[in-house]
Amino acid sequence: MKNISAVLFLLVALAATSHATCFRNPLRLLTDDQSSHAECITSPIHLLRPKSGAGGHNVPQINCLSWRLAVETYNLRNWKLVPESCENYVGHYMLGKQYREDCDAVADIAIAYAKNLTLAGDGKEIWVFDIDETSLSNAPYYARSDVQFGAIPYNDTKFNAWVAEGVAPAVPGVLRLYKTLLSLGIKPVFISGTKEVYREVRISNLKNVGYRNWEKLILKGENDTGSAVVYKSNKRTELVEAGYRIVGNIGDQWSDLLGTNVGDRTFKVPDPMYFIG
Amino acid sequence: MKNISAVLFLLVALAATSHATCFRNPLRLLTDDQSSHAECITSPIHLLRPKSGAGGHNVPQINCLSWRLAVETYNLRNWKLVPESCENYVGHYMLGKQYREDCDAVADIAIAYAKNLTLAGDGKEIWVFDIDETSLSNAPYYARSDVQFGAIPYNDTKFNAWVAEGVAPAVPGVLRLYKTLLSLGIKPVFISGTKEVYREVRISNLKNVGYRNWEKLILKGENDTGSAVVYKSNKRTELVEAGYRIVGNIGDQWSDLLGTNVGDRTFKVPDPMYFIG
Repeated sequence: MKNISAVLFLLVALAATSHATCFRNPLRLLTDDQSSHAECITSPIHLLRPKSGAGGHNVPQINCLSWRLAVETYNLRNWKLVPESCENYVGHYMLGKQYREDCDAVADIAIAYAKNLTLAGDGKEIWVFDIDETSLSNAPYYARSDVQFGAIPYNDTKFNAWVAEGVAPAVPGVLRLYKTLLSLGIKPVFISGTKEVYREVRISNLKNVGYRNWEKLILKGENDTGSAVVYKSNKRTELVEAGYRIVGNIGDQWSDLLGTNVGDRTFKVPDPMYFIG
Repeated sequence: MKNISAVLFLLVALAATSHATCFRNPLRLLTDDQSSHAECITSPIHLLRPKSGAGGHNVPQINCLSWRLAVETYNLRNWKLVPESCENYVGHYMLGKQYREDCDAVADIAIAYAKNLTLAGDGKEIWVFDIDETSLSNAPYYARSDVQFGAIPYNDTKFNAWVAEGVAPAVPGVLRLYKTLLSLGIKPVFISGTKEVYREVRISNLKNVGYRNWEKLILKGENDTGSAVVYKSNKRTELVEAGYRIVGNIGDQWSDLLGTNVGDRTFKVPDPMYFIG
């Protein structure tokens, strides 16, 4: 089956590139909105690392589809790195159309749910959005040869430098959900683990790619300590205590969706690149 | 990409059949244990339903991989039927090796977690197992032409008649987890939505396929009303009140894994055939 997988990956890669309309947008993640407002992505896609088993042979394969399912279902927790043997798989998934379609499917389900809600009319219904790998995609960063889709250990300095560029594209399905919620009268609230020092660049990044109105943009202050679950639970609790009703909550990490006041319904978008506990 | 998918499905189907050693075991779900203790499955695999769009054309495709991911991540809830356009996909997934390997991956993760536990030595650590599509597989039933892997509405009478046969094979990865837990001193407790009237046949089915020792086998009594989440939460709470500590909990439905006293860690095995809320 390995040869079949290789052929499939090639076909997916070809399908992904044959529709590209902008050399500077290799990930096809920019929406119509963004193409007129944001810089195209200038980094080319680096070649994926060759297999590096002893003697040049392939390293023993784990079933990367099973690994990804375990990640997405929260069976696998506190994992540190994408397995080296799955780096190619994750790279092709993130750059190919399946990731885009998986995100679109989440958006479709969330939109159907939202359209079916009866709103109270007091403007207190909110929807919580995570930012990284939910509202904005860091795939251009993760595709870099020194990041390798999460198969190389996370580097805080490098990632923050990428955030400071403010050029992350939107995850298209999630932007569509965002716009639909606004049209329905459900107010978006961003809660992100990004530090406050990046507020201005995050705002410009969000606005440039099409996220233009929100009720709150909550970033991590100096006094916000503890795990992501605790931090995000605390912020959601503050919202509920302020009279808001969280009707929906979308994130790529289970730590976005577990804890207290998670919301009436939660939505998980895929992320096989990293885990935040 | 449709042709590629068709080729792939064919290859998976060929791979699945080329290793079959027993005509009466078309699903290759029997383990060594079972082949000596249980009857082989006598139903042949029926041909999957042809596409039935108007004019004989294919019905509009949804992305079945995205649909399955949405099911497994609990993004999609309270769904009634496998989409007709995904019936073939689900059938091939369930009969092919990916389902088996996905279950094996869950077992590997659960075993690694269990082996890392420090037990108190008082024999009060338990692991909760769901039965259907977790400990025992109903794939031979779901492969029938009048069931179509969940694309035809659930029929209580037919399903109960299948349960009464008592010939469901084990999900191999889960049986391996079960045996490992027993060897570690963690006691299995089955909690199933099966009605008490089927107790004897379920016991013989479980024992025949290799599940031979357990602390409790909890089935649904006449007074057990309410949703699966409420029923299973109540039963787990009774266990905790009796002094047991639930160190792990494995099921194919999110209703097995949500609610109260879910256990220190939960494990979701795949099930794209039906939803129980």
